Amino acid sequence: MNMVRPTQTSTSLLQQQYQNTRAYSESLCKPLHIEDYVPQSVAYTSPPKWSLAHVTWFFETFILKPYMPNYQVFHPDFNFLFNSYYQTVGERAVRAQRGLMTRPTVEEVYAYRTHVDEYMHKLLNQTLSPKIQALITLGINHEQQHQELLITDLKYTFALNPTHPVYHPDFNLVTDENTSKGWLHINEGVYEIGHQGDGFCYDNELGRHKVFLHDFQICKALVTNAEYIAFIEDSGYRNFNHWHDDAWSWVESNNIQHPLYWQKIDGLWFHYTLAGLKAIAPDAILSHISYYEAHAFASWKNMRLPTEFEWEVASHQLDWGKRWEWTSSAYQPYPNFSISEGAIGEYNGKFMVNQMVLRGASAATSQGHSRHTYRNFFHPQLQWQYSGIRLAQQQVGDI
Amino acid sequence: MNMVRPTQTSTSLLQQQYQNTRAYSESLCKPLHIEDYVPQSVAYTSPPKWSLAHVTWFFETFILKPYMPNYQVFHPDFNFLFNSYYQTVGERAVRAQRGLMTRPTVEEVYAYRTHVDEYMHKLLNQTLSPKIQALITLGINHEQQHQELLITDLKYTFALNPTHPVYHPDFNLVTDENTSKGWLHINEGVYEIGHQGDGFCYDNELGRHKVFLHDFQICKALVTNAEYIAFIEDSGYRNFNHWHDDAWSWVESNNIQHPLYWQKIDGLWFHYTLAGLKAIAPDAILSHISYYEAHAFASWKNMRLPTEFEWEVASHQLDWGKRWEWTSSAYQPYPNFSISEGAIGEYNGKFMVNQMVLRGASAATSQGHSRHTYRNFFHPQLQWQYSGIRLAQQQVGDI
Amino acid sequence: MNMVRPTQTSTSLLQQQYQNTRAYSESLCKPLHIEDYVPQSVAYTSPPKWSLAHVTWFFETFILKPYMPNYQVFHPDFNFLFNSYYQTVGERAVRAQRGLMTRPTVEEVYAYRTHVDEYMHKLLNQTLSPKIQALITLGINHEQQHQELLITDLKYTFALNPTHPVYHPDFNLVTDENTSKGWLHINEGVYEIGHQGDGFCYDNELGRHKVFLHDFQICKALVTNAEYIAFIEDSGYRNFNHWHDDAWSWVESNNIQHPLYWQKIDGLWFHYTLAGLKAIAPDAILSHISYYEAHAFASWKNMRLPTEFEWEVASHQLDWGKRWEWTSSAYQPYPNFSISEGAIGEYNGKFMVNQMVLRGASAATSQGHSRHTYRNFFHPQLQWQYSGIRLAQQQVGDI
Amino acid sequence: MNMVRPTQTSTSLLQQQYQNTRAYSESLCKPLHIEDYVPQSVAYTSPPKWSLAHVTWFFETFILKPYMPNYQVFHPDFNFLFNSYYQTVGERAVRAQRGLMTRPTVEEVYAYRTHVDEYMHKLLNQTLSPKIQALITLGINHEQQHQELLITDLKYTFALNPTHPVYHPDFNLVTDENTSKGWLHINEGVYEIGHQGDGFCYDNELGRHKVFLHDFQICKALVTNAEYIAFIEDSGYRNFNHWHDDAWSWVESNNIQHPLYWQKIDGLWFHYTLAGLKAIAPDAILSHISYYEAHAFASWKNMRLPTEFEWEVASHQLDWGKRWEWTSSAYQPYPNFSISEGAIGEYNGKFMVNQMVLRGASAATSQGHSRHTYRNFFHPQLQWQYSGIRLAQQQVGDI
Repeated sequence: MNMVRPTQTSTSLLQQQYQNTRAYSESLCKPLHIEDYVPQSVAYTSPPKWSLAHVTWFFETFILKPYMPNYQVFHPDFNFLFNSYYQTVGERAVRAQRGLMTRPTVEEVYAYRTHVDEYMHKLLNQTLSPKIQALITLGINHEQQHQELLITDLKYTFALNPTHPVYHPDFNLVTDENTSKGWLHINEGVYEIGHQGDGFCYDNELGRHKVFLHDFQICKALVTNAEYIAFIEDSGYRNFNHWHDDAWSWVESNNIQHPLYWQKIDGLWFHYTLAGLKAIAPDAILSHISYYEAHAFASWKNMRLPTEFEWEVASHQLDWGKRWEWTSSAYQPYPNFSISEGAIGEYNGKFMVNQMVLRGASAATSQGHSRHTYRNFFHPQLQWQYSGIRLAQQQVGDI
Repeated sequence: MNMVRPTQTSTSLLQQQYQNTRAYSESLCKPLHIEDYVPQSVAYTSPPKWSLAHVTWFFETFILKPYMPNYQVFHPDFNFLFNSYYQTVGERAVRAQRGLMTRPTVEEVYAYRTHVDEYMHKLLNQTLSPKIQALITLGINHEQQHQELLITDLKYTFALNPTHPVYHPDFNLVTDENTSKGWLHINEGVYEIGHQGDGFCYDNELGRHKVFLHDFQICKALVTNAEYIAFIEDSGYRNFNHWHDDAWSWVESNNIQHPLYWQKIDGLWFHYTLAGLKAIAPDAILSHISYYEAHAFASWKNMRLPTEFEWEVASHQLDWGKRWEWTSSAYQPYPNFSISEGAIGEYNGKFMVNQMVLRGASAATSQGHSRHTYRNFFHPQLQWQYSGIRLAQQQVGDI
Repeated sequence: MNMVRPTQTSTSLLQQQYQNTRAYSESLCKPLHIEDYVPQSVAYTSPPKWSLAHVTWFFETFILKPYMPNYQVFHPDFNFLFNSYYQTVGERAVRAQRGLMTRPTVEEVYAYRTHVDEYMHKLLNQTLSPKIQALITLGINHEQQHQELLITDLKYTFALNPTHPVYHPDFNLVTDENTSKGWLHINEGVYEIGHQGDGFCYDNELGRHKVFLHDFQICKALVTNAEYIAFIEDSGYRNFNHWHDDAWSWVESNNIQHPLYWQKIDGLWFHYTLAGLKAIAPDAILSHISYYEAHAFASWKNMRLPTEFEWEVASHQLDWGKRWEWTSSAYQPYPNFSISEGAIGEYNGKFMVNQMVLRGASAATSQGHSRHTYRNFFHPQLQWQYSGIRLAQQQVGDI
Repeated sequence: MNMVRPTQTSTSLLQQQYQNTRAYSESLCKPLHIEDYVPQSVAYTSPPKWSLAHVTWFFETFILKPYMPNYQVFHPDFNFLFNSYYQTVGERAVRAQRGLMTRPTVEEVYAYRTHVDEYMHKLLNQTLSPKIQALITLGINHEQQHQELLITDLKYTFALNPTHPVYHPDFNLVTDENTSKGWLHINEGVYEIGHQGDGFCYDNELGRHKVFLHDFQICKALVTNAEYIAFIEDSGYRNFNHWHDDAWSWVESNNIQHPLYWQKIDGLWFHYTLAGLKAIAPDAILSHISYYEAHAFASWKNMRLPTEFEWEVASHQLDWGKRWEWTSSAYQPYPNFSISEGAIGEYNGKFMVNQMVLRGASAATSQGHSRHTYRNFFHPQLQWQYSGIRLAQQQVGDI
């Protein structure tokens, strides 16, 4: 979790946000069977059941227990089961085995949600201090983050099923096309980076500060499937010159030959989507590639990815928001970054090594959970997010 | 699967056996929640959902499809999903990921069972050739094997849950004590080994043949928890002299210090059982040890395990049947062993390396699924069966 | 190490044996450069430098230190460095890193040999008790075992060098052909197995005992390269029906497609030998196959491997001794097997799980180090010994 | 390899530099026995024999072959054996097995050096184009880099030997103490970063560009052993709050408890040095820590590491040069970074992910091989370089 900044929110608005967020999590699970709530397909994903309980545990632990008098803990075991970051060897073992915890049942998890919601509604009917309001806002944003993960993790699990389950026929998420094209030119100079104003943000966006940017241009469009297929067909995955050394090991060890969820059937490209197995639309925007692939593609184009600072400066003049866009920036602290005290601060800082920043938002991102200064981050080999490529370059040119 | 021998069974008896076996599988699942049907905790176990479908697939594939005119296959994907042994690289990948297949649902699997049962009942009402009767008997025995695995696999999964779920308060299975003691003496000579008579047996029991046994004596009682605790307290797990070289690597790599499911709480030994976490009863028979541990314990006692031939000869004068008993015999073919043609024969033979024979039966073994000639077998490090120790030695002595 | 049986050897004969054995080890190293003494290519091999020192350490530790008054230990560190089996975690770490111990130098190891030899010569000029004579005989046999390993381990290392180093142009070892053909028939009955008489043997051969054998026939010839190539060309490595389950995992995980040291160049089979890279002679006897491969080949022929008892009984009427012959027997103790006390007994017993027995001897086996009752053993996947295949079957037939 | 910039060097000076560099490599090997040249202790190190040949291969491949008429290649196999980066699967396999290539011998490698030196001397007596001069300068710098690796790799191998070999009694390298203390303050502003002028530099230093730095202060002294011992004694390795998430996994998986080469004997700290095992001097500068440890220590001090830009700006007012100093900057390209064409350019760019920048130089760095703009880089878990910690912070304070 991470530090929350006090924001000016009226309680009734906060109450509405809380209800909407909680309801949206449950609406995302409507198409699921109970079986779908259980598995954890790979260590970096979580079972839907666990996610629904974990975001609830957050409200219970950081808000109800300390600030709601007479709060009745729902179940004494749940603090242990749904606490994601408390660090002991034993706990780590549990983390990789979330998919093996068949109990509590899905029904019990929903009862847990109801129990916490009832107390939260009581709390939200009271006049709340800015600190408590801020914590509730943080809990809402935390649940929104897990809503996106719920979707991407579910896709990962469903894709392993040889029968290609359909989550929902209208929930494809990867059919959209670019609405702009050409290059946006930005002049060199000192720019300000980082969050400002009263709105919510995470601690890693704070500490507005200056950076010097040299002239650059950035593409108004994201890379399409057709453009990426050209890279594949030009043996992009077999030419080590385009790849980082660590990337090349990853390609060879895992025999990577295309984006995640893609497969070739009788010479045609298909991909698994949450609407089932679909033919790949050439003009749709590319998705589900790793940083390694994004960098290799850019190298093949004789271009590069933008830095996260270039992206933030340019973003006010760009269309963005249906794909997370890999930047060339390693995820590192801003000047003056400081970690909040206690468990609430144990989140963003500890991932500031070996991960790359993504900017923007994806079609799976919850409404209201994106902004120009938002810093997403993942290890460079991960493909399971709705991640795409925006190109940049120093000199004037054209794709 | 494995070869079936024609047996003299009346169709009505067979029908009864079929119904009982199918009903027993479902009764074992009565205490389960839907979530419990899903996970596969480790590669050598299977999810209950998969087991229920796989044994059904057996009847569909080897009996209904070839011998039931107009049989309607329940679902075309199921042959792929519930076929355990057809060997391709892709299929292997599926094997380790059975716990990630959330679909078909539990409800669909029960519908599959009902569908197959209906056709099987029609078939069983007809006059059946000995060959078909034999195949049905094989299917029944196959389902009985999976009933035992369903219990042991479920215990493995539940044991990983820090909340110690109770499967059923009356289903402890590990509280029984020895009813006999002392040694049984067997004289040297040529003995006959292997199955004879009309009853059902697996192919690995066939080929009745002679072996020469030297004088030996075998313990009438199995090793108790108290006796094994003495081994632990005498630093049995820290003294490499008692262990095979491969066993010692296993002990050190996995930091093995006690039987599976045991833990020490405040100086007292407890173990997880299907009735929940229980204090260990000193006089109850030991369970859940690997061959490596059984051998080390015997070495510490200056004794040895019996060979499977010694066990078979002695078994007619012994109490047995609540624990699988590790023998000192590697699992190898009998003289004249031959593998049946086709998929039905692809089972017992291919495991005849690196595994050790267990004789007897456990409290989890289905009724009617044990006999003096039955050869069970597992890799020497596996602990998750209800496995115990019976000692033997060459010279006259006493424990 | 392993128990030695008192033997009737005159001291002068023993002195001769000692000198011959020690000299032969050094003559095997004549073609080496200092660099060749250093590496350990894989955990189950040893560097030549280590082997030369380890066999010397044996004489120092078990004979000179206890029985030679005023013996001066050569170097206090050597007990730690060249002791192969003393079991602690730290020592294990050293075992896999023998190839990284650049010191002591080769020159120092030869000085160590000279030092120990001088004391041994003094000792051998005295009248020795049967016990000491027996220990020296054991030391001689121990060094002979390591002579064979020195050859096979060196081949393994040289084969990894893309330049195909020539150890010696006359030391090919794999060109010999069969001198007999057809089948030898053995009648059923009780046979005696195990060592008898006054000669040296290892503890695992002791305990002469009876076994019952059924009628069988065994091939007078070993399988040739041409026969094995037919198996390869019939897709033997791609047909899982011939392979044990564990074997198939090994084939797939390691992409095994032929015996060790083989490669196909422009459609022709070559193999690395200690005389360099050579074309494979079709009529020469096959070498460097694992048990898994031996079993699969036999299955493809619709035959089987002999048991180690069948081999021992038949061996008096067979030509054998240029290849180790995989038997179908798991390596297990004979009735009445007992382990010697102390470190001298810490050898044969602890390998009696997960390994298969080989009988015979190879072209790399030292002279005088083979007999009808000798039991060699390795894990079933290992190929680096000069190992071959002799077929057997129950019924009368012909290859 | 990496791009070289044309530099204004007279040929006679270049000749002198060449001779000095070549001679220094061989003088570093004077204390070695032939055995010491052979092993590769871990994948990221190289055997001394390989290093000596590889730097020679560089001159042969990029200078003599293309620019020296009538050059006779020393041995056709050497291009394959000593080429470090040509990327194929087979070549990769060779990379991890450099320590198993016993041939060519050390003597042959020295003959290779002599052969190439003779031709290089002839070439250096001629008038050379700036391009060839630049390539020779690059070759010299390349050999200097390998001189440092030769020292650090040798230390890694020797340290694994339980007998603590002494490379040279005067070559300790880790006894020096700080000569300054207190903080250096730097004001915010736009600064220029990157190489300028005519001197040699690597491609990753090029593209002088502007960065904006905020006010900061940087420590004039490096962290001492005593300060780091205080971290250890305050349970620094057991408190996950100080560690990155990936770092914590590394600490736990590898049971890291102290810097590389340290051990506690009877309550006192010792470390292996190239002068043998020595007591740790409290006031000497800390060495052999990973980035993960550097970051955790800084966190424990409530400070941080400097960025590489802060370091470069401050370095003109700091003492530096006996330790590589971990910065908080991920290794990434400068604006306008471009990769040279062909194999000569296949080096720096491909490591620009997952690695951290170190600035400064160590006591093992060759003379003339350090500058304010030099960017060294390693994966964050590596400890085997002479790496230390310099602290920085935003606010005014004191250690």
